Amino acid sequence: MRSAYHHQLAELTVQLGEMCGLANEAMRGATEALLSADLDAAEQVIDDHERMVVMRERAERQAFALLALQQPVAGELRAIFSAIQIIADIERMGALAVHIAKIARREHPNRVLPDEVRACFADMAKVAIALGDSAKQVLISHDPEGAARLREEDDAMDELYRHLFKVLLDQDWTDSVPVAVDAALLGRFYERFADHAVEVGRRVIFMVSGDLPAPDEISTY
Amino acid sequence: MRSAYHHQLAELTVQLGEMCGLANEAMRGATEALLSADLDAAEQVIDDHERMVVMRERAERQAFALLALQQPVAGELRAIFSAIQIIADIERMGALAVHIAKIARREHPNRVLPDEVRACFADMAKVAIALGDSAKQVLISHDPEGAARLREEDDAMDELYRHLFKVLLDQDWTDSVPVAVDAALLGRFYERFADHAVEVGRRVIFMVSGDLPAPDEISTY
Repeated sequence: MRSAYHHQLAELTVQLGEMCGLANEAMRGATEALLSADLDAAEQVIDDHERMVVMRERAERQAFALLALQQPVAGELRAIFSAIQIIADIERMGALAVHIAKIARREHPNRVLPDEVRACFADMAKVAIALGDSAKQVLISHDPEGAARLREEDDAMDELYRHLFKVLLDQDWTDSVPVAVDAALLGRFYERFADHAVEVGRRVIFMVSGDLPAPDEISTY
Repeated sequence: MRSAYHHQLAELTVQLGEMCGLANEAMRGATEALLSADLDAAEQVIDDHERMVVMRERAERQAFALLALQQPVAGELRAIFSAIQIIADIERMGALAVHIAKIARREHPNRVLPDEVRACFADMAKVAIALGDSAKQVLISHDPEGAARLREEDDAMDELYRHLFKVLLDQDWTDSVPVAVDAALLGRFYERFADHAVEVGRRVIFMVSGDLPAPDEISTY
């Protein structure tokens, strides 16, 4: 009985890692779609999200069953409690990638972004995907120090996000209003993706230690 | 023992209702700040969010303690499971109101929005606050029909959101890029607030029935 239980708990950890991997893959594909006006990549990300929805449901059912049948305590209860929250964060990361892919698809065959901000988006994507990969790693390793480092990694995103808005709101901005609006929303999607990865790190710290670090302050650009 | 347990469970429900009330109050204040360039209202919303953070932590602790000490099953377990998810949605609703308040504060004493979109924002705010109020009601009443109606109520928001972008992206738009960028982000904040309220409704349906309705498709403007 206990052995089946530990197997199920390990299975839930594997599912979280897989979901996070799927979200990161979506973000890679969405970025490819955005920066290269790659329609196939965009369609793939949009279609794949169905898998994420299915995995979310399955992981939630698994977490619920573990609580119902096994009545876990202490560290194991923390693991399941955190998993319930992490599942929602990861699904949202995938949904944000879908938003990016849908904007790329809508504008195809044109590129959404003007040259002025392309490098900034390439950098934001790099940081977002690195954060997603780190989140996946700490979900599997349960390393609290790695989890804490996610917040530091996110500083680079905050800086890029501020830079993006500096460019968008500069008087020298010569592109159209629609382009600026898309760039602002897209920037926000990358930034939120990173925030959710940081949140995964916070929850892993609680899972391991029982202490939940304070959330970051809410900042606008 | 059981009686203390049911008291704690009822207490958690009260806390969710209070948190949702606080998020709605924040959205009212943020809207006042936005539409009337009211600095005091903006500051109030920003300062009050600390209370939300404290309430979130308390509600999570309460949910965790109920799982750890009472080993609930069936409907009671569903109530706690859902509460863990709902707490995150409500906190996010509050955070979105803070984002709106911060933009209003940054632009004070100027108004952020031009006349062209003020009425649209007034309508979006009305729908968002009504959805938040409905979410609060179903959190307390546990009425699954009321919870299901939240999704229908949200249709009005989707329509207003689409309308907003039609105005912003129209060639007749004569305002500056920064104004359009702010309006786009602000529109997104209202729309996400409404989405989280709908999500609360979904979770209440699961709480009551054990069935979780499928999530809405991801739509961009």
